[in-house]
Amino acid sequence: MSVPPFPFTAIVAQEEMKRALLIAAVDPSVGGVLVFGDRGTGKSTAVRALAALLPRIRAVAGCPYSCSPESPAQACPHCSQGRGKSHQIPVPVVDLPLGATEDRVVGALDLERALTKGEKAFEPGLLARANRGFLYIDEVNLLEDHLVDLLLDVAASGVNTVEREGLSLRHPARFVLVGSGNPEEGELRPQLLDRFGLACEVATPTDIATRIEVVRRRDAYERDGEAFCAAQAKAEKALQKTILSARERLGGVGVPDAVLESAARLCLALGTDGLRGELTLMRTARALAALEGADVVSVAHLRQVAPSALRHRLRRNPLDESGSTARVARAVAEVLEPA
Amino acid sequence: MSVPPFPFTAIVAQEEMKRALLIAAVDPSVGGVLVFGDRGTGKSTAVRALAALLPRIRAVAGCPYSCSPESPAQACPHCSQGRGKSHQIPVPVVDLPLGATEDRVVGALDLERALTKGEKAFEPGLLARANRGFLYIDEVNLLEDHLVDLLLDVAASGVNTVEREGLSLRHPARFVLVGSGNPEEGELRPQLLDRFGLACEVATPTDIATRIEVVRRRDAYERDGEAFCAAQAKAEKALQKTILSARERLGGVGVPDAVLESAARLCLALGTDGLRGELTLMRTARALAALEGADVVSVAHLRQVAPSALRHRLRRNPLDESGSTARVARAVAEVLEPA
Amino acid sequence: MSVPPFPFTAIVAQEEMKRALLIAAVDPSVGGVLVFGDRGTGKSTAVRALAALLPRIRAVAGCPYSCSPESPAQACPHCSQGRGKSHQIPVPVVDLPLGATEDRVVGALDLERALTKGEKAFEPGLLARANRGFLYIDEVNLLEDHLVDLLLDVAASGVNTVEREGLSLRHPARFVLVGSGNPEEGELRPQLLDRFGLACEVATPTDIATRIEVVRRRDAYERDGEAFCAAQAKAEKALQKTILSARERLGGVGVPDAVLESAARLCLALGTDGLRGELTLMRTARALAALEGADVVSVAHLRQVAPSALRHRLRRNPLDESGSTARVARAVAEVLEPA
Amino acid sequence: MSVPPFPFTAIVAQEEMKRALLIAAVDPSVGGVLVFGDRGTGKSTAVRALAALLPRIRAVAGCPYSCSPESPAQACPHCSQGRGKSHQIPVPVVDLPLGATEDRVVGALDLERALTKGEKAFEPGLLARANRGFLYIDEVNLLEDHLVDLLLDVAASGVNTVEREGLSLRHPARFVLVGSGNPEEGELRPQLLDRFGLACEVATPTDIATRIEVVRRRDAYERDGEAFCAAQAKAEKALQKTILSARERLGGVGVPDAVLESAARLCLALGTDGLRGELTLMRTARALAALEGADVVSVAHLRQVAPSALRHRLRRNPLDESGSTARVARAVAEVLEPA
Amino acid sequence: MSVPPFPFTAIVAQEEMKRALLIAAVDPSVGGVLVFGDRGTGKSTAVRALAALLPRIRAVAGCPYSCSPESPAQACPHCSQGRGKSHQIPVPVVDLPLGATEDRVVGALDLERALTKGEKAFEPGLLARANRGFLYIDEVNLLEDHLVDLLLDVAASGVNTVEREGLSLRHPARFVLVGSGNPEEGELRPQLLDRFGLACEVATPTDIATRIEVVRRRDAYERDGEAFCAAQAKAEKALQKTILSARERLGGVGVPDAVLESAARLCLALGTDGLRGELTLMRTARALAALEGADVVSVAHLRQVAPSALRHRLRRNPLDESGSTARVARAVAEVLEPA
Amino acid sequence: MSVPPFPFTAIVAQEEMKRALLIAAVDPSVGGVLVFGDRGTGKSTAVRALAALLPRIRAVAGCPYSCSPESPAQACPHCSQGRGKSHQIPVPVVDLPLGATEDRVVGALDLERALTKGEKAFEPGLLARANRGFLYIDEVNLLEDHLVDLLLDVAASGVNTVEREGLSLRHPARFVLVGSGNPEEGELRPQLLDRFGLACEVATPTDIATRIEVVRRRDAYERDGEAFCAAQAKAEKALQKTILSARERLGGVGVPDAVLESAARLCLALGTDGLRGELTLMRTARALAALEGADVVSVAHLRQVAPSALRHRLRRNPLDESGSTARVARAVAEVLEPA
Repeated sequence: MSVPPFPFTAIVAQEEMKRALLIAAVDPSVGGVLVFGDRGTGKSTAVRALAALLPRIRAVAGCPYSCSPESPAQACPHCSQGRGKSHQIPVPVVDLPLGATEDRVVGALDLERALTKGEKAFEPGLLARANRGFLYIDEVNLLEDHLVDLLLDVAASGVNTVEREGLSLRHPARFVLVGSGNPEEGELRPQLLDRFGLACEVATPTDIATRIEVVRRRDAYERDGEAFCAAQAKAEKALQKTILSARERLGGVGVPDAVLESAARLCLALGTDGLRGELTLMRTARALAALEGADVVSVAHLRQVAPSALRHRLRRNPLDESGSTARVARAVAEVLEPA
Repeated sequence: MSVPPFPFTAIVAQEEMKRALLIAAVDPSVGGVLVFGDRGTGKSTAVRALAALLPRIRAVAGCPYSCSPESPAQACPHCSQGRGKSHQIPVPVVDLPLGATEDRVVGALDLERALTKGEKAFEPGLLARANRGFLYIDEVNLLEDHLVDLLLDVAASGVNTVEREGLSLRHPARFVLVGSGNPEEGELRPQLLDRFGLACEVATPTDIATRIEVVRRRDAYERDGEAFCAAQAKAEKALQKTILSARERLGGVGVPDAVLESAARLCLALGTDGLRGELTLMRTARALAALEGADVVSVAHLRQVAPSALRHRLRRNPLDESGSTARVARAVAEVLEPA
Repeated sequence: MSVPPFPFTAIVAQEEMKRALLIAAVDPSVGGVLVFGDRGTGKSTAVRALAALLPRIRAVAGCPYSCSPESPAQACPHCSQGRGKSHQIPVPVVDLPLGATEDRVVGALDLERALTKGEKAFEPGLLARANRGFLYIDEVNLLEDHLVDLLLDVAASGVNTVEREGLSLRHPARFVLVGSGNPEEGELRPQLLDRFGLACEVATPTDIATRIEVVRRRDAYERDGEAFCAAQAKAEKALQKTILSARERLGGVGVPDAVLESAARLCLALGTDGLRGELTLMRTARALAALEGADVVSVAHLRQVAPSALRHRLRRNPLDESGSTARVARAVAEVLEPA
Repeated sequence: MSVPPFPFTAIVAQEEMKRALLIAAVDPSVGGVLVFGDRGTGKSTAVRALAALLPRIRAVAGCPYSCSPESPAQACPHCSQGRGKSHQIPVPVVDLPLGATEDRVVGALDLERALTKGEKAFEPGLLARANRGFLYIDEVNLLEDHLVDLLLDVAASGVNTVEREGLSLRHPARFVLVGSGNPEEGELRPQLLDRFGLACEVATPTDIATRIEVVRRRDAYERDGEAFCAAQAKAEKALQKTILSARERLGGVGVPDAVLESAARLCLALGTDGLRGELTLMRTARALAALEGADVVSVAHLRQVAPSALRHRLRRNPLDESGSTARVARAVAEVLEPA
Repeated sequence: MSVPPFPFTAIVAQEEMKRALLIAAVDPSVGGVLVFGDRGTGKSTAVRALAALLPRIRAVAGCPYSCSPESPAQACPHCSQGRGKSHQIPVPVVDLPLGATEDRVVGALDLERALTKGEKAFEPGLLARANRGFLYIDEVNLLEDHLVDLLLDVAASGVNTVEREGLSLRHPARFVLVGSGNPEEGELRPQLLDRFGLACEVATPTDIATRIEVVRRRDAYERDGEAFCAAQAKAEKALQKTILSARERLGGVGVPDAVLESAARLCLALGTDGLRGELTLMRTARALAALEGADVVSVAHLRQVAPSALRHRLRRNPLDESGSTARVARAVAEVLEPA
Repeated sequence: MSVPPFPFTAIVAQEEMKRALLIAAVDPSVGGVLVFGDRGTGKSTAVRALAALLPRIRAVAGCPYSCSPESPAQACPHCSQGRGKSHQIPVPVVDLPLGATEDRVVGALDLERALTKGEKAFEPGLLARANRGFLYIDEVNLLEDHLVDLLLDVAASGVNTVEREGLSLRHPARFVLVGSGNPEEGELRPQLLDRFGLACEVATPTDIATRIEVVRRRDAYERDGEAFCAAQAKAEKALQKTILSARERLGGVGVPDAVLESAARLCLALGTDGLRGELTLMRTARALAALEGADVVSVAHLRQVAPSALRHRLRRNPLDESGSTARVARAVAEVLEPA
């Protein structure tokens, strides 16, 4: 039970997914990440790998929300009643099981205490555990709409507001929501799709050498996980540093007017509803610029992130049978090229 | 958790929605407001912005219904048992979560007190919290009919009557109901549509400059909310004053016979069921006149509010395939022009 | 919360509905009243107005069934255990909420007393509250069949028999059942339709002057209810007197053989199932005669009430596409004219 | 609440139904009676009238199963623990409400005693109340199949065997099951139809004089029930005598071989499944003979009861579109005429 | 309640069903018996008759599983805690009611003891009661699949394993499962059909004399059950002897290779899935041989039992529209005739 | 109840299934085994036989997870609180009943202790019982998706993580999942299929001699199980030895590059999603090599296991109507032959 997870830097191929996850790690405000595609392409592995790559965080001991000792004490019901020491913990990764009830997700009345002591206490749920980390939903398209809605609401606000069974409380729940799914099995309602920040596609590699490399690495890792991770330690450290410095740079990265206009033209050309597309495009490009060490966002950054930021925001166009990715690519070519 | 909401006066475009909300703020008896249209167009933002714009209200401390200290003490179960001090609170805005049960909305038996003290006490619900404020329902078309019905009943009467689980009580619940929805996903039953006072449409702006302005403002607000709001403070104060003086003027605004007749002719031409259309048209025009500082309602006021007041009251006409808005506009042109 | 309801005599137009309600007030044994038609035509207002028009009744204080002090003491579980003083109360009007459970309607085990005192006590339901008054069901066609059935059973027998959860009791439940509905949304099963005594239709007035009058009165009433009601007080008093004297005359009104034969011929011509149609026709005509101060029922009385008494008892006739009202009118013309 | 029911002998027309009920009163082993036909034709009235016509029975005081003081004491759980006095009670008539649960029908654990005294006691249900009387099910075709099945099982065996919630007991439940229904609304499964002994049809009379007579009698009864019943008392007494003497004669009525063979030929010609048809035909004819004072059953008796005994046992024949009644009549004509 | 059941030897016709039941009584390992066919053909009567025909068994007094005093004491939870005396009881026949829950069938936590004494005790279900006897399911095709599955599992293993509500125990449950059904109303899944050992068909006799004989016997039995059974006593005793001696002979009856090969060829010709068909064919033929007093099984025995043993194991063959019975008969003719 | 199961080595034919089970016994990390095919072909028998063939394991006495005394003490909630002696137990085989609830599978709150002692204790479920053994699911295609998903998750990780009803614990649950099903009755979702390691097909033998042999062996076993097993003991011992030595050799078996490339080419040719196919193919071939005593995996090993490892991973190809097995065979022929 104590083998370290497969290292992020040892993941072969799947560049779009890896970039989207790194961007979310730099600026969680871009919103959740949807990963659609073939089974067995390591989606869950990647999330766990990213979390393990990040440095441990400092948390108040005993706080079910893993509050930072530097956060205001009134931020959570636990810390507002006094805080003890803090310790270091790994960045949390929480898996949302397919049949999870709202109770398990949101938290609920602590029945044991209600029954034995006659007091109304809150039993934190998965949202509490995910605070400051990642919440991973496999096959998000099979989850009930109202749960996805709730998760997106909490992810957007960073706060879980509980009003049920006579409980009334709020606790911090800042996490990166990552959902995976297979577009062949039922789809998300457009209303929900639209609320994810990024959507990327993964596919089984078709190159023999790549495939052998994946199998080899996986087998090596499973036979001796410790050794495999040790060999990857340096690359991991380097990537960790890149992320941390991008976080620091993010506030200072500029977004020129021309870039904003390009973003607007692109969204207009694609007919995305509302302006969430433009906002996300700008933020994603800014985070990418930060990762790359750039001081200002360029149209080139827009071009790289446009598919992830927009492909899930297109209306179905009965006259245009090409897939979303192709439609975004075409619009990028038409709108951004001359710029 | 303490950033002020986005300012109402900083909302770009969406004039029809803004006017409808202002009218409801001046005369809540026009009934609830339905906002239909594209995702990501700031519907929820606008409601929150309007509530924040209004001056704080004085409420009895500890009263779960936020009773005014000037209301009759027997108005609510709390105040009828003695009142303490009062304090100032913001105008409440309550969000109705998609999966809310009738219990959460209406209030229910306080199980804790029932179990521990063996007494039947009432635990107020969302309707109690919404008293004297706004109740916002996102995607109202996805809510169960009987809940919408219940909400409209309470909104119309201003009283929540609870008769369940052996509880029998009434409490004030005066609020402006605002529902948003996407007409592409299931529709409200005509019976329910008809009971909303106003219905307005919002759409993503197609003008590049407007779009950039929206994204700029949103990004500026999210990067430094305090500064952004401070810059808008003067415009907010001015609009607040307009609303307050319109409320005072409302009682004195006259409705000439010719205007009433025009309203009747318009509804007759459109074949709306019953006379709710006419009543709403008259009240909405009167509130608009008050906002504009006029002493009497004119046909021009009717013309401005007719689409919001009538478009959701039309019967489906199989021979007329134009949308509701177009049909109202045509009737306005035919009936009101010669007047 | 203390504004008097809109006065019955101030209701503009809707003559058939008003007559049906008055008849039911004179002879409740005609059975319930169904009102079908457009939304926003004041159906609920009319019921409330009629109840408010009737003189207050004398009821045993503390009796949940509002027993008359003159009824036999054993008539209800409360009074059979001793009676105290009596007081005057308004004629009850009970609204059946759309989602009402059988428990709320029929009454149920008083859980609080069961839990705290370990005794099986009855908690009276809406049927108890409706005793001696009116039970109003909005959109009766949306109610579950078994509830409508139950309500019609109780309304017919005047007794609510409770046999559930170990409770076994009977209490008086004499009320006039008034249901409203919109024929465009699902229909009642013929079995249920048939058990309502009268069915009338309401429609939005199409006359401009009438419409303006309705809007004017409504607005005047809502602006100053007290003044509006005061102005109508004399007309209300007069109508009250008419009802009370009709109730007294009712027993003495004769039904000549020729009238009975005409009623039978009419029902035969329309092919109504069973003989409930004839029985209702006779009683309704008798109540109308009493209201008009006549000593015997005439064919003219039959003619007036035939649509209300029969239109909901016709079998669907695939060869006759005219509506029920037209079919009744044609049969009246053919059968009653020569008489 | 104490008006006597409408007298059986005052029921106008509906001869087949009345005969079927009288036969079941003479020999309950013919099985239940199904009455199909128009609404408002007095089906429920007839059952209640028949029960009221029968002489009161002697029952052990306090016994929830109304045991006869002459039955063996071990026959029921109550009497097997000692018996007190007996008293006279009317023949029970129990109405099965449409939404009745299995609990209410069969009886269930007495929750009050379970909770307060911790003992497992049985709370008898409707089957207990119906013992020695009639169980009436309105719209039996709307009841759930498994309940109809259960009722038919108990009616056939005369015993209610309870095995549920840790209870294990048997009590007598001998009653005549009478079900009414409207063939236009869903049908009973053939398996269930087949288990009713008799099935008869009722229809609205089409003769004017008959109709007026029905309405007159009904109105007279409702205006002064006591007087109406008094006027009918002699006819009632006479019919009661006929039933009682038929019950005594029944054992001695002979069934000649030729009659049995005719019954077999008739069933064979109609292709009824199994031999329940023949058994019922024989018993019904025997009971009719007893009512008529005959010593042996004749083919004429068979002919009279054949429609009631067989019409619900026919297989659907796609090549023969005539109704069941016509098919039975034709077979009777072909098979019995030459005999 | 104490009339003896209708005697097995007095059942007229229905030879296949009677033979199948006798075979199951001789060798219960052939598996359950399915009886399909017309209503009213005495299926339930036959099962009860067979059980009554068998000699009473000796059972441990107080044991809810009716353990034999000769079985190992640890065989059931009751006997493993000490045994008292034994007594003679009739072979149990348990009816499975249509709406039976898994709880009633399998047994469940004894709630009374759980609540009053706080201990987890097992309350045995119908499977316990059926041990060493017969379990009869009327209309088995209407039972839920998972219950049929469970019953077949227990019947096959002779043990009921309970793992639920914190209970964990096993008790003997050896019984012959007999299911009846009407193929016109829904069918069993092939998976379930296949697990019944034998399937036989019954039909209403078409011969007049036979029909009269059935009706006469039934009427005679119902008028004086004791006398009827007394007259049949000798025949019953003789058949009982035949069964008992067949049970003893069974172990010594040989199955020649040629018979096994014929069985295999027959199943191969019919294309039955798996080898359950062959195994059942062999065992059924062996039990028949034992009943007939033969020392070895012959092809003639195979031929007699083939329809019962195989007709429910055929795959649907779209090219062969003949019924299962005809297909088995044809295969028997083709495969066994030349042998 | 104490007859030993049918011996694995006495199972006639069904070579693919037997090989798949042996491979899973050597290397459980290949994942679960699906067995699809005809009813009555001994699928359940084979699993039980394999488990009985394996040597008994040493387990901590009283540990509900059957922990090995050599595992780390903190591995399970029981052992982490102190361990007593250990004893030998048979390899567990757990049957998952068709209607099993999540509670029974995963484990749940121990209600008895919660109620009587007021403490929250865990009552282990079927997953606990299956640890270190086999979990058999008959008709896995009829199980609810979320349960299959859960079982596959636990089987893959070897750990059951419980987060429900206020419980939060982990316990070891390493087992070989074996599911059987009939492809004619509903199919598993591709997502689930793909997560089983191996899928094999079984069919009824069509060879007469084989069929007779199966029936003979089965009958012999059922007549005298002890003797039958004794005769097979030597063969069983030999197979046990082969398995144990293969387990020891497994770590040292090499996988040459050419074999890995062949595996990749094969999967690419078949278009399997993701790389699970390749990984399983490699591991399965390696386990087979170990069973055969080889030191390196050869293409011949790949060829033997390819159908079991890949046939359930193919996408439906509308242009290729051949079954999965044929498609794998063709790809093997095309891709591996020239290698």
